[in-house]
Amino acid sequence: MYQTFDEAAPTQSVAPRVAHLRQMFDRLRFDAFLIARGDRYRGEYVAERDERLKWLTAFSGSAGLAAVTRDRAALFVDGRYTVQSRQQTDTRLFEIMQIPATKPSDWLIDALESGDTVGFDPWLHSIEEIGRLETALVAKGIRLKAVNRNPIDQVWGGEQPVAPSGPVVAQPVSRAGRLAKDKIADVQRDLVRAGEDAVILTLTDSVAWLFNIRGSDVPHTPVVLAFAIVPREGRAELFIEPSRMSGAVREQVEAVAELVAPDHLPARVDALKAQEKRVRLAPGAAAYWFLRRLGERRVSRGPDPCQRAKAIKNATEIKGARAAHARDAVALCRFLHWFDKEVSTGQLDEIAAAQKLEAFRQETGKLKEISFDTIAGSGPNGAIVHYRVNTASNRRIRPGDLFLVDSGAQYADGTTDVTRTIAVGEPTEDIRRHFTLVLKGHIAIAAALFPKGTRGIDLDPLARHALWQAGLDFDHGTGHGVGSYLSVHEGPQSISRRGEVALEPGMIISNEPGFYREGAYGIRIENLVLVRPPHRPEGGDREMLSFETLTLAPIDRRLIASELLEAAERAWLDAYHARVAREVGPELDAAAQSWLEAATRPLDNSAAGRW
Amino acid sequence: MYQTFDEAAPTQSVAPRVAHLRQMFDRLRFDAFLIARGDRYRGEYVAERDERLKWLTAFSGSAGLAAVTRDRAALFVDGRYTVQSRQQTDTRLFEIMQIPATKPSDWLIDALESGDTVGFDPWLHSIEEIGRLETALVAKGIRLKAVNRNPIDQVWGGEQPVAPSGPVVAQPVSRAGRLAKDKIADVQRDLVRAGEDAVILTLTDSVAWLFNIRGSDVPHTPVVLAFAIVPREGRAELFIEPSRMSGAVREQVEAVAELVAPDHLPARVDALKAQEKRVRLAPGAAAYWFLRRLGERRVSRGPDPCQRAKAIKNATEIKGARAAHARDAVALCRFLHWFDKEVSTGQLDEIAAAQKLEAFRQETGKLKEISFDTIAGSGPNGAIVHYRVNTASNRRIRPGDLFLVDSGAQYADGTTDVTRTIAVGEPTEDIRRHFTLVLKGHIAIAAALFPKGTRGIDLDPLARHALWQAGLDFDHGTGHGVGSYLSVHEGPQSISRRGEVALEPGMIISNEPGFYREGAYGIRIENLVLVRPPHRPEGGDREMLSFETLTLAPIDRRLIASELLEAAERAWLDAYHARVAREVGPELDAAAQSWLEAATRPLDNSAAGRW
Repeated sequence: MYQTFDEAAPTQSVAPRVAHLRQMFDRLRFDAFLIARGDRYRGEYVAERDERLKWLTAFSGSAGLAAVTRDRAALFVDGRYTVQSRQQTDTRLFEIMQIPATKPSDWLIDALESGDTVGFDPWLHSIEEIGRLETALVAKGIRLKAVNRNPIDQVWGGEQPVAPSGPVVAQPVSRAGRLAKDKIADVQRDLVRAGEDAVILTLTDSVAWLFNIRGSDVPHTPVVLAFAIVPREGRAELFIEPSRMSGAVREQVEAVAELVAPDHLPARVDALKAQEKRVRLAPGAAAYWFLRRLGERRVSRGPDPCQRAKAIKNATEIKGARAAHARDAVALCRFLHWFDKEVSTGQLDEIAAAQKLEAFRQETGKLKEISFDTIAGSGPNGAIVHYRVNTASNRRIRPGDLFLVDSGAQYADGTTDVTRTIAVGEPTEDIRRHFTLVLKGHIAIAAALFPKGTRGIDLDPLARHALWQAGLDFDHGTGHGVGSYLSVHEGPQSISRRGEVALEPGMIISNEPGFYREGAYGIRIENLVLVRPPHRPEGGDREMLSFETLTLAPIDRRLIASELLEAAERAWLDAYHARVAREVGPELDAAAQSWLEAATRPLDNSAAGRW
Repeated sequence: MYQTFDEAAPTQSVAPRVAHLRQMFDRLRFDAFLIARGDRYRGEYVAERDERLKWLTAFSGSAGLAAVTRDRAALFVDGRYTVQSRQQTDTRLFEIMQIPATKPSDWLIDALESGDTVGFDPWLHSIEEIGRLETALVAKGIRLKAVNRNPIDQVWGGEQPVAPSGPVVAQPVSRAGRLAKDKIADVQRDLVRAGEDAVILTLTDSVAWLFNIRGSDVPHTPVVLAFAIVPREGRAELFIEPSRMSGAVREQVEAVAELVAPDHLPARVDALKAQEKRVRLAPGAAAYWFLRRLGERRVSRGPDPCQRAKAIKNATEIKGARAAHARDAVALCRFLHWFDKEVSTGQLDEIAAAQKLEAFRQETGKLKEISFDTIAGSGPNGAIVHYRVNTASNRRIRPGDLFLVDSGAQYADGTTDVTRTIAVGEPTEDIRRHFTLVLKGHIAIAAALFPKGTRGIDLDPLARHALWQAGLDFDHGTGHGVGSYLSVHEGPQSISRRGEVALEPGMIISNEPGFYREGAYGIRIENLVLVRPPHRPEGGDREMLSFETLTLAPIDRRLIASELLEAAERAWLDAYHARVAREVGPELDAAAQSWLEAATRPLDNSAAGRW
């Protein structure tokens, strides 16, 4: 689980692999090739066989793009990955380019000449991505050319891992809350309204949600790698090997859909074309392959009809989320108690802490999987927002450090995601001030009332206001959507500068403002919150929405400069802590319970230096 | 100035005018005609000869659209004007439709048949508006047809007022801060960057700003009704009768531009087309006529290049704004003092108050014009956000009322816009709570620090947070841009749900949260603020922007429930009041100065019931 970069993919193999790829250019008739990081479904996690970018460049980050010409090569990564990509790839071959400051199209225009051709795998780039690229390149006389078989796979050859083929399981209606049949009927009504004949679903969380199935094809997200076609009337088609389902699951799915072997997908798409159907594709999500196969005239561009419906949890899913969080809280509080004792020995390191946290979650007996690689950053490592610990970066946790731990779990009834920042030894005045400003932002969101129609973009500034007043800020969004035993990052809602979607009752979203002092420490306080139904407050004249906090774990009182909190903020924190003690305490052993009582007592009774 | 509706335009004339218009349909070969409210320049205020909508329908609101078919007619107005439009027009003829809930295209589709034709004046609708309408109507087989001469003008005939032809004056560089020549050079650099050959400027405030000229062609905004063409190199052309300028002004303008009689505009546009120039037009602003005349292939759609540059005031304009506000503050404080005495007689009404306020501004000796019709709403009239007092609605101001007065002035060195809400008699507890919540929002904006790149959309929620927490809100934006002796409403910046433009140092914007209890009272607290250059606050790690408040007038302490304010909010108010007393006090007579001292003393020394 915690590998060094060298173990992950050897830098010395980069040169021969790139050389091999270049040898194919003449035969395939292009002058450059693009290597995407994603798979055909374009989700956050991919199976090992789809790690083409890592295989070629040795770069193991979760986002990136490579371009190889006959004499140059570039690896495009965002700000999170500039250091890591330099350490991992062969920089004698690959120029490291930072996106979005540099656009891949600009680099290609510089590296190629008019008349040149760029090859790409139409399965691995979205309709939107290819459209943008084409517009930029065509103006310079450079053509794009879709390949029928990915040349990386040919170079990789027999060494390429096989596609995942693990069992597909049912998400029973007792957890999903709605029958697949009813969800499909909703999608069909949406198609009728839009005057469309069918939609091709390409997002695996949409497919898992719609058919009430789950799998283990990729790490951390319990999806099945499968496409689906839903026609405006008649039966849906799910493209998956029927053999991957046991009889009971198969029966459940076949009640609402045809199971079609994935090999038949092209023929089914051709049939839609031949019948002159109007087919919806989500251009930011769907692979360009579909547009190419159907032809522009048959395609209706529109949103994936499952994404918004999936984001609004039903009563069963909400009940499940509360149960999952209550369970996760026990593991987390046990961990925090253990950490406080263990860290004082001076021997604890980041990997050991992350492993122990996972062990506590295992001990719930219900853990399916952790919902992402745990971020366990002490001291300066905490300031790296997307830090993933490995044996090279692993650090012993020392007095005076802050320890930031961002982690989550997949349970059959819900997905969790929580960050706590913990004091080790005596925090400085600066640390306490910064922590308290972040806490003020967290509370502003947690306690906010807001009218119907409010979007995440409208709430984001509330999480920053206290930091702004001190000349501080953080460079990530305040919150992302979270699925129901599905993706830990889901749309369409978010609390961020791009959160254009109105928040609706039933949506689950993270509340995670932070502050990062480079080279010194990172602070983040993250709970998941659920949008409550509207209510009219006493004395108000409008129905207002608000949040229920789902995550239950103490917020480190040793880090709070309580004189910086307003009375209402102190009241929120004390009430939250009282709830944590009441709901989690009885599930703990005596030592942990007594620790929790101290960690959650009201602020005004605080004794310095203790939880 | 304060007319009844009946005096404005007689309802009984609507029927014969509509009948006359309909008689022309056959000859002009259309089945419906659209009547816009704007003129060719599409600004907020129009000259009397361009009040075609009012002339036809008797509706005098500042926004609206009418559509007349052979047997039906509709008047489309927004929520501000549904009541007024019903009172003014002949509702036996015109259906009143509320936009944006109803789209004019939907009504037309319902009222017409496939194959029908809708006439419109291509000078009076923007490129965007016609594009949207065409898309909607074409799908139903309905055509749009541009007319060469507006049939309303033909029906209106000799009674139609002539076009404004008053003198054009120079805005000297001592006030404008930059030479027209330098501004034009900037626009030309922008054209070079964009690969365009010319831009046609259609917004009168852009033209006035670019050439450093002012006029009095429309009420309240000191612009000249004139188009301009700026080529990427060579001399600009300003389309205006040269006779409207005195020798000195003419000399100044001719140093940087050709003066061309407006009649020659079509020929000049034709020449651009013949020369195959690439011409920028702002599709939301420019009349459809330009697109039609140039042809789609010659047009490059882009922003008006003056709007953003104009919004960022230079040092001279900033100095002018401060002087204008200091002067306006004297008039305003004299008015507030006078009002407090006068209202106790029980005889004061809204019109008398508004007239007295204008008289105090006149007494500064510098008033060019008020910057919009004063909103003077007492009691329930204050809850009508865009209330304009007239002899029918005029109301005597009574004890227990709130009095909301929103007004502004045009001075040669700056434009002002200020709202104060004043207690008459003893305010209720509810009123004080609501006023204080609005004040909290006002202070949140006034005192905000925010990072570079922050847009108005990101600040708007800070003005609402305190109201939201109480289940309240207001249904208008928090702030709009304000010109420099130009339009009192200018873009591109705003503090609102649509404020997508980053705030830049030098921008002037209003800060005007409010609260409205229908049928009872309205509260609004409005100051203009100037975006200051970035500075790094003590202890912060980022450069932050902030606001300087320009408007100087007491905020009614009798309406403040100070126990609802945080210490920092009280400190802001006390410091603001101390500044008002220091800067305005010495300019007042003894009685007013002593009143101001009481009105601006620190909150903690407040004696109930007194300013």
